[in-house]
Amino acid sequence: VHLTAADARVRFAASRVAHLATADAAGVPHIVPVTFAVGAAGPADPAGTVYFGVDHKPKRSTDLRRLRNIAANPRVALMADHYADDWSALWWSRGDGLARILGGGGERDTAVALLREKYPQYTRQPPLGPVVAIDVHTWSGWAYTG
Amino acid sequence: VHLTAADARVRFAASRVAHLATADAAGVPHIVPVTFAVGAAGPADPAGTVYFGVDHKPKRSTDLRRLRNIAANPRVALMADHYADDWSALWWSRGDGLARILGGGGERDTAVALLREKYPQYTRQPPLGPVVAIDVHTWSGWAYTG
Repeated sequence: VHLTAADARVRFAASRVAHLATADAAGVPHIVPVTFAVGAAGPADPAGTVYFGVDHKPKRSTDLRRLRNIAANPRVALMADHYADDWSALWWSRGDGLARILGGGGERDTAVALLREKYPQYTRQPPLGPVVAIDVHTWSGWAYTG
Repeated sequence: VHLTAADARVRFAASRVAHLATADAAGVPHIVPVTFAVGAAGPADPAGTVYFGVDHKPKRSTDLRRLRNIAANPRVALMADHYADDWSALWWSRGDGLARILGGGGERDTAVALLREKYPQYTRQPPLGPVVAIDVHTWSGWAYTG
């Protein structure tokens, strides 16, 4: 059954990990797992904003392909889902949106606070690299059983 | 630590679910979870081919966006990964390749046999829709600890 946008958003926000798909200017897709937090949706922001950080561990430059892609093409897709060999337990939730790489300032501070609240690891060592905000315009989802 | 291509491929092949990223001709990315099987790599096909089917359940036409995207732009990315709140257990494996939608014939039969061998669900009811082959040209991966 198809999920309502509200149900898809709630399932997504409660997940511990998501997958981010980006594409470069030539349309070559890329995919990475991300830890993330969802900002509270409100009347002015009914769909909500998803935040993820680039952590502090040394990375090869190729690991920042997600950031190069976003700079070239902000359209992204996010997915959280549950897999089980009992396929009647399957569900997925997808957010389609536009990504922004945050500089310093208030929104980055808010995002880091949300990430620290969700993941104790970020309390010990907050993400020191760029933080990305994804303004989701469409939530969709599916579950084998409703 | 970065994984060797061989290690990334082995971890991917042993996974029960992967995520597929595609993009349309305008570069808008899409992401879906897929059950899949990996064809045996050989001297003529060192990286291997990943197969997934479109199952028999009724779908809205929008659920076939993965196929429309592949027809418009065969460049795709696949990822299998492990998430745990103990981040020292994290790993991911990514295959970048080109997708082909199979018609009938020998390769489709081989793909369905591989899928049935991996997933008992497909023995009871094999995928009746299109089967997609992804010829992976690059395997890469990362694990927190080697």
